[in-house]
Amino acid sequence: MGVVIPLEDGKNKQASVQPLVDLTKADMERVNQLILAKAGSDVEMIPEVANHLISSGGKRLRPMLTLASAAMFGFHGDAHVKLATSVEFMHTATLLHDDVVDESDLRRGKSTARMIWGNQASVLVGDFLLGQAFRMMVEVGSLDALDVLSTAASVIAEGEVLQLSVAKNMETTEDDYLSVIRAKTAALFAAAAEVGPIVAKTDRSARNALKSYGMNLGLAFQLVDDVLDYGGKAADLGKNVGDDFREGKITLPVILSYRRGTAEERSFWKDAIEGGNATDANLEHALGLITRYGGLTDTIARARHYGTIARDALAPLPASPWKDALLEVIDFCIDRVN
Amino acid sequence: MGVVIPLEDGKNKQASVQPLVDLTKADMERVNQLILAKAGSDVEMIPEVANHLISSGGKRLRPMLTLASAAMFGFHGDAHVKLATSVEFMHTATLLHDDVVDESDLRRGKSTARMIWGNQASVLVGDFLLGQAFRMMVEVGSLDALDVLSTAASVIAEGEVLQLSVAKNMETTEDDYLSVIRAKTAALFAAAAEVGPIVAKTDRSARNALKSYGMNLGLAFQLVDDVLDYGGKAADLGKNVGDDFREGKITLPVILSYRRGTAEERSFWKDAIEGGNATDANLEHALGLITRYGGLTDTIARARHYGTIARDALAPLPASPWKDALLEVIDFCIDRVN
Repeated sequence: MGVVIPLEDGKNKQASVQPLVDLTKADMERVNQLILAKAGSDVEMIPEVANHLISSGGKRLRPMLTLASAAMFGFHGDAHVKLATSVEFMHTATLLHDDVVDESDLRRGKSTARMIWGNQASVLVGDFLLGQAFRMMVEVGSLDALDVLSTAASVIAEGEVLQLSVAKNMETTEDDYLSVIRAKTAALFAAAAEVGPIVAKTDRSARNALKSYGMNLGLAFQLVDDVLDYGGKAADLGKNVGDDFREGKITLPVILSYRRGTAEERSFWKDAIEGGNATDANLEHALGLITRYGGLTDTIARARHYGTIARDALAPLPASPWKDALLEVIDFCIDRVN
Repeated sequence: MGVVIPLEDGKNKQASVQPLVDLTKADMERVNQLILAKAGSDVEMIPEVANHLISSGGKRLRPMLTLASAAMFGFHGDAHVKLATSVEFMHTATLLHDDVVDESDLRRGKSTARMIWGNQASVLVGDFLLGQAFRMMVEVGSLDALDVLSTAASVIAEGEVLQLSVAKNMETTEDDYLSVIRAKTAALFAAAAEVGPIVAKTDRSARNALKSYGMNLGLAFQLVDDVLDYGGKAADLGKNVGDDFREGKITLPVILSYRRGTAEERSFWKDAIEGGNATDANLEHALGLITRYGGLTDTIARARHYGTIARDALAPLPASPWKDALLEVIDFCIDRVN
């Protein structure tokens, strides 16, 4: 089950994350060492749970953003490695808590930690990783970086609660949805990119450029993620097609299809999402409506809109391989749908 | 159902928290204002959940420790108020997560947040409060205070996971149990008391004195709490007698009674705690064994031992009403059992 997503015309080359991976390779090895060290504990269950998720093959996009956004301003040292690791721990803690909140059984194609060790361990190991993240930030000693990342921690949690409040409510607008993804996803991308120039002690304009780049990249990334939930294959995605539908999560493809539909179709959506009637047959019907109303293609168009803002945010910065790699990541995040 | 706990001989006056309450009254009003402000959010569910717990009548012992341990060194200003609020938020976040982990239905005589708003909101609002706590610490701008409190956050979570690992294991020793309560409870008392001298910029010896006072007070406090679980009345305690027993939590009264019992009695404990056979009849029998083997009186004796260490930790400090109030709190924490 899935929806065919049309390729954008006139594009020859698939954008890749590889240039960013190559440029940050040496520093990412230090990040990976630090992840292992700081997820360690005499309490055996902690590294077990942490490593389950950490080793499950995420792209580590967020820490790469931190490394690149410091290195592009000539920064050398430890601070960006510690902050990149903090960012990844914040992300991992969020995933552990999310899986409890969403009652998910699969993530990246593997059983979630809560299915193996229980909700209790997932909540508490998440708390531990968050604590470790803050300890590393304190080691770095930059109050500006601490301010950016602690604010992000609050905002992310606020966004998750907001998502809970709008769940199963078909009257959610595109603006409500944007508030949710801005907080729960884009805020960490923005913080990850902003702390690079902070430790590199750039001027304010470079810091603002990276923050804006991260924020808009994060929005594009989440929009595409929400498309993939309806369009991807479980094997590629590491989760099941239609998970959001079954959980009654309101994402942009659904919002667009609902608002553009007939009264009868809106009743269908209310029954399926608000009424919790998310059967396989109803998912099939929902996919049909999403295709008819351009729910996926127009969500991708919105993602391109934010991608363009991210691109313009970096425009004033001098040309460099780092800048090129960060720009290519925008297209990579969006092209994932193909 | 409950156990009679003998009064200590030769004590006339019941120790009270009142002198500490009186001395910190003006600053605690500022803490309470800040709690309301920082638990606020446009996302309605956040203040609802937070205020449910915040308004439920806890003693606010931890923030009072922070205020007193700064004020006793002549500190005036905002920093101790912000740090006291951070400490209370860290504590509240832990309670929200604990209730999810323990599947508790009652706290301080009221339904837990998770029973009203669900586990999801409890996890996420806890995360939000933790984020807000760090933001306030960052506002204060003391890297030393940030170090102490972020380390406490990690250690608390580590202690909770350790508790999970030793749960339902009757071979848990008193030392294992002490490691758990040192991390999950005493570490925050220690941090709460240590950040006072930090913002007051005292010498290292005063800082160490308050840290040691907090750590040992926290141990005494938790030991007595664990006694109250078997000895208190639900109405006083705000929870049910025997909750720990029903959850298979190993606390010192049980450890002592198990280790001092006959082979037959040890089989009973294994069946009840490890086998999850925590019926009312078994609780009644457990209470009988705990009484026979002095499980409660000897746990209180252990609490007095740590109380004495806390008292000696403060001994070198000059006499003051603050010092007297902090010393009286030690006895207050222990005398709660009467």
